Amino acid sequence: MLVNGCLACDELAGKVRAPGGVIYEDQHWMVSHRLGHDAVPGHLILKLKRHCEHLAELTPAEAATLGPMIQKTSSALSKLLNAVKVYAASYGEEVGHIHFFIIPRTADMPAGNMRVLLYLRLHTLLIRCGLKRAATEVERGHIAERVSAEIQRL
Amino acid sequence: MLVNGCLACDELAGKVRAPGGVIYEDQHWMVSHRLGHDAVPGHLILKLKRHCEHLAELTPAEAATLGPMIQKTSSALSKLLNAVKVYAASYGEEVGHIHFFIIPRTADMPAGNMRVLLYLRLHTLLIRCGLKRAATEVERGHIAERVSAEIQRL
Repeated sequence: MLVNGCLACDELAGKVRAPGGVIYEDQHWMVSHRLGHDAVPGHLILKLKRHCEHLAELTPAEAATLGPMIQKTSSALSKLLNAVKVYAASYGEEVGHIHFFIIPRTADMPAGNMRVLLYLRLHTLLIRCGLKRAATEVERGHIAERVSAEIQRL
Repeated sequence: MLVNGCLACDELAGKVRAPGGVIYEDQHWMVSHRLGHDAVPGHLILKLKRHCEHLAELTPAEAATLGPMIQKTSSALSKLLNAVKVYAASYGEEVGHIHFFIIPRTADMPAGNMRVLLYLRLHTLLIRCGLKRAATEVERGHIAERVSAEIQRL
């Protein structure tokens, strides 16, 4: 069910911990922050709880719960981070295991796939060069707690 | 329910027709090709059948049917176009109306969000400069028919 060497499986197995820890999980899906100290707080990953690399291979139960997970996570981010839009996107190339990026696009960010992608790459570069402060574990944990409470309330 | 001047609503109202026509629709969602003569055949859009701009605002019935639509469309594209991966992504910035790009990433395409985005922009540019042939309406219609039949079979 889980595969050694798969980053998503490693997190599901508890070998890797996302900043702020597990935000929400049910039988089929888990929500947590993106990995890495340079990730923007509130930029979440929704990942399938078993190793599967193709959306085509979702079981009926997994498929039926995907939309509600996207809706609830988007709702929590819209409310808590005042997101103008929430993006939900699955590519699965660097990490093949099915996952969706759930990205709250706030008013201070540029709009659109390409611009947000460049914005996030620049954000990472600036942090790595010491030109921007990375969010602390406490800050991420605080957001994770609030998003978790909000999703469970929905 | 539909909004004048919204491109997705215009298509839902029958004022605009995607290449190849409607591929599949149910009570909540519609699948068709991307608009534009330069779109790659098989690059589809899954759009909500009412005007709503935020994933957070999906109704329980819309959310419950989103995943199965993504799964079925991905399955049809994987089989018919021999896609290595199928991407599913919702941004909703240029057209605010909720829609997911469903992109079959075939073996002749580069992998990953940024690379595929650049590949598709280049594809469009080459067609507009007359350096690449756009797919004909008949070719798109042929793919649309096969994807439609496959989704309905699932």
